[in-house]
Amino acid sequence: MTFPIQNTGLFTDHYELVMAEGYFLSGLNNYPVAFDYFFRKNSFKGGYTVFAGLNTLLDFISNFGFEDEDLNFLSLNGFDDNFLNYLKNFRFRGNIYSVKEGEIVFPNEPVIRVEGGLAETQLIETLLLNTINFQSLIATKASRMKYVSEGKTLMDFGLRRAQGLGGIHATRAAAIGGFELTSNVYSASLFGLKSSGTMAHSWIQNFSDELEAFRTFAKHFPDQSILLVDTYDTLKSGIPNAIQIAGELRQKGAELKGIRLDSGDLAYLSKVARKMLDKAGFENVRIVASNQLDEHLIKSLEAQHAPIDVYGVGTALATGKNDPALDGVYKLAMTNHLPSMKFSENQTKETLPGIKSLSRFTDQNNQFVMDGIALDHEKETIRFMHPFDKSKFTTMEDMQREFLLDCVMTEGEIDSRFKNLSISDSSAYFTKRFTQLPEEFKRFENPHLYKVGISEKLFELKTELRKRINHESATNSGSTA
Amino acid sequence: MTFPIQNTGLFTDHYELVMAEGYFLSGLNNYPVAFDYFFRKNSFKGGYTVFAGLNTLLDFISNFGFEDEDLNFLSLNGFDDNFLNYLKNFRFRGNIYSVKEGEIVFPNEPVIRVEGGLAETQLIETLLLNTINFQSLIATKASRMKYVSEGKTLMDFGLRRAQGLGGIHATRAAAIGGFELTSNVYSASLFGLKSSGTMAHSWIQNFSDELEAFRTFAKHFPDQSILLVDTYDTLKSGIPNAIQIAGELRQKGAELKGIRLDSGDLAYLSKVARKMLDKAGFENVRIVASNQLDEHLIKSLEAQHAPIDVYGVGTALATGKNDPALDGVYKLAMTNHLPSMKFSENQTKETLPGIKSLSRFTDQNNQFVMDGIALDHEKETIRFMHPFDKSKFTTMEDMQREFLLDCVMTEGEIDSRFKNLSISDSSAYFTKRFTQLPEEFKRFENPHLYKVGISEKLFELKTELRKRINHESATNSGSTA
Repeated sequence: MTFPIQNTGLFTDHYELVMAEGYFLSGLNNYPVAFDYFFRKNSFKGGYTVFAGLNTLLDFISNFGFEDEDLNFLSLNGFDDNFLNYLKNFRFRGNIYSVKEGEIVFPNEPVIRVEGGLAETQLIETLLLNTINFQSLIATKASRMKYVSEGKTLMDFGLRRAQGLGGIHATRAAAIGGFELTSNVYSASLFGLKSSGTMAHSWIQNFSDELEAFRTFAKHFPDQSILLVDTYDTLKSGIPNAIQIAGELRQKGAELKGIRLDSGDLAYLSKVARKMLDKAGFENVRIVASNQLDEHLIKSLEAQHAPIDVYGVGTALATGKNDPALDGVYKLAMTNHLPSMKFSENQTKETLPGIKSLSRFTDQNNQFVMDGIALDHEKETIRFMHPFDKSKFTTMEDMQREFLLDCVMTEGEIDSRFKNLSISDSSAYFTKRFTQLPEEFKRFENPHLYKVGISEKLFELKTELRKRINHESATNSGSTA
Repeated sequence: MTFPIQNTGLFTDHYELVMAEGYFLSGLNNYPVAFDYFFRKNSFKGGYTVFAGLNTLLDFISNFGFEDEDLNFLSLNGFDDNFLNYLKNFRFRGNIYSVKEGEIVFPNEPVIRVEGGLAETQLIETLLLNTINFQSLIATKASRMKYVSEGKTLMDFGLRRAQGLGGIHATRAAAIGGFELTSNVYSASLFGLKSSGTMAHSWIQNFSDELEAFRTFAKHFPDQSILLVDTYDTLKSGIPNAIQIAGELRQKGAELKGIRLDSGDLAYLSKVARKMLDKAGFENVRIVASNQLDEHLIKSLEAQHAPIDVYGVGTALATGKNDPALDGVYKLAMTNHLPSMKFSENQTKETLPGIKSLSRFTDQNNQFVMDGIALDHEKETIRFMHPFDKSKFTTMEDMQREFLLDCVMTEGEIDSRFKNLSISDSSAYFTKRFTQLPEEFKRFENPHLYKVGISEKLFELKTELRKRINHESATNSGSTA
């Protein structure tokens, strides 16, 4: 088994290479710049996003380079020989600042900042967007299922419906967002997760009857058997046969581990199954439920007090159904030591210029209250304003403050604190932070809008840059009209 | 650059390995069986599905095996030593029958059949579902965009919003479904596609003004420049500056290739841009449009006669938004030389037993009329019935008949006819077949339901198996109640 993509240089959009060549040929490849990663909208109409993918990204960036065959391909596609020679020994040598993996983040926050030369920072754009957008999407989806199934076990069944090799990191992100088990053996082995599974209907069909199928399985896996009970008739055949096997196992000193319901009314069937199992003396046999589950169905099952112990979730988890992409972007914030911003006729699509800090304020109960974005030197600012409305100010007095951006990579080297982080570290961090997020941001229907303010100086910088550009734009159009 | 996953053995669901171990320990691993792949519902509420992923699948299956580190991982997870020893030299040695890549297919048709021993056919299930479900989804999505943009060029911009490494094969599938260009350099190099790209807003921001940014780009790429015109003001600044550069290029004997619109009202802006360019004498400068496009927006732009030459499509294409998974399944059809089927209280979820042929009937204009599923020996049947309604029969007289299932793999070896097929072969096949599909199945709103009948013998086999199972089920529940 080889990890997908040893050398990630070609995992990029063509225009990144074109622009890098243009910068190189203009002598601008080491021109100092900074880019911010942020997204504009939480997925799933939710109130928050779980940041994930950082450690994958740092690995990918460490392996960002070009082999001879890659350069041959680019050469055949018309790239300049001197530029290809430059790419030969190319390594990313910039600095990266980021919030921690598992952090709860909100729209328009600069959650990653990449500083470095113009060519290197541009070349990694696609890799960064692809990795962070997807894993944050799936970690967020997973967290929504975790939220409504407190105390139950969540299991990722998504590989068969995942978007191709996307399934590899879907499983990783699901683990960060609260899934304890996965069916995906490849990702389990790659990321040190626990893989697990039950049986398919085909197992049952391959024996002359259900009882024989169950009995054969239980013989080989006496302490690990989870029997799929809906092949013929759940209540009339599947569960009675499972109880029969549970009895036979007990006579041999083993215990049936569980049954799995995979069709029908899961609330009703789980209640009847629980009663049948308990009545027969098998209170510890667990009930696993699957079949097109998502956070809304799990919430409904929990509201009905369905005695389900394990939820197996496939498509909705692995694909982020029905909102299959987080809209994260990578925008220039500094160029040649000067703040830069992207303008738009739509004010909400303008970007925040300059090198910025991201602060989180928490109350005496450790609950998140507000985040603030300021220019990097304003370490003391506790007064933040609405991003577009100068009349709305909030002052964060008597609050604890955290600066959320850590330096995770320095001159291309992963910081030692982030080098050997495991998924369980990221998952534990998410779990801790999720307890600090007030309930009103977690609900599915019209969640409360979390406040993210900007400093007055940042607002003024935006205003000044907008003025300057309007002036230049007027001059330009004059000159070309 | 290394192809993702050299050895695909662990790219499977845990339960496949558990069942394979159970079969191995029961001496049933070589027990002869056959599985069908089919899906129940076209994606996007459409009238057809484009079958894709076959060649990827055949490659993956050829590389399905286990390395020592994989076996160590499985050993640590409790798998039996004798079974792991069996896996050590495991290779898939079965036969695979499939429709061609690029074929137009419909719900409930057995589009792939896998024949072989019980363990090998079970172990590849997840790999098959993952590959075919995803690529067919994206090829279908791509074909919908192709359908409404006849004559225009489609370009895949999806990598940054793709579901992680899923982007690799999204690009492949998009090419089969009608996309000519991609921004994804990695997939272009892997699959022999043409990658292409323009410039980002950051390029513009890195120069003192838009004109200098355009001029520098044009200097390095005189015949390849597509200028992004919406950074400041599309009509007042971007297009006038692009025209200025087009003039400067022409003086040097080069021609501006295009402009790209990435925000605003694309119908309006493209019309005004076209007029401005034409008036200035640049009738050959192409207009590229992007920004959250999907098949519905492209259809609307075409209906408005927007003079757009190239559509760049990202998220909606790469993720199959908003229907991010095809629901394909892999179900047992034969066990120990006897037909088998999966029952359900819901008749439409029952499977079709036995080894089956899939025929397509076309009229004298080569248009698809109906597909028929029959038992494999009934080569002459031209009378097909509704799958559930015995009163509805159709006889395919005076029609041409094609048998759609080819043997693509024999005893684990890819058939020579399918070994060196390129994406352009599959794409050409799709294009040809798409012209044979009548319009009423292509439309987006309430497409016509394509007729797929079954032979009377197949219907009778189902009825007989259902009777037998009802009898056994009654006996079973009696014995365990």
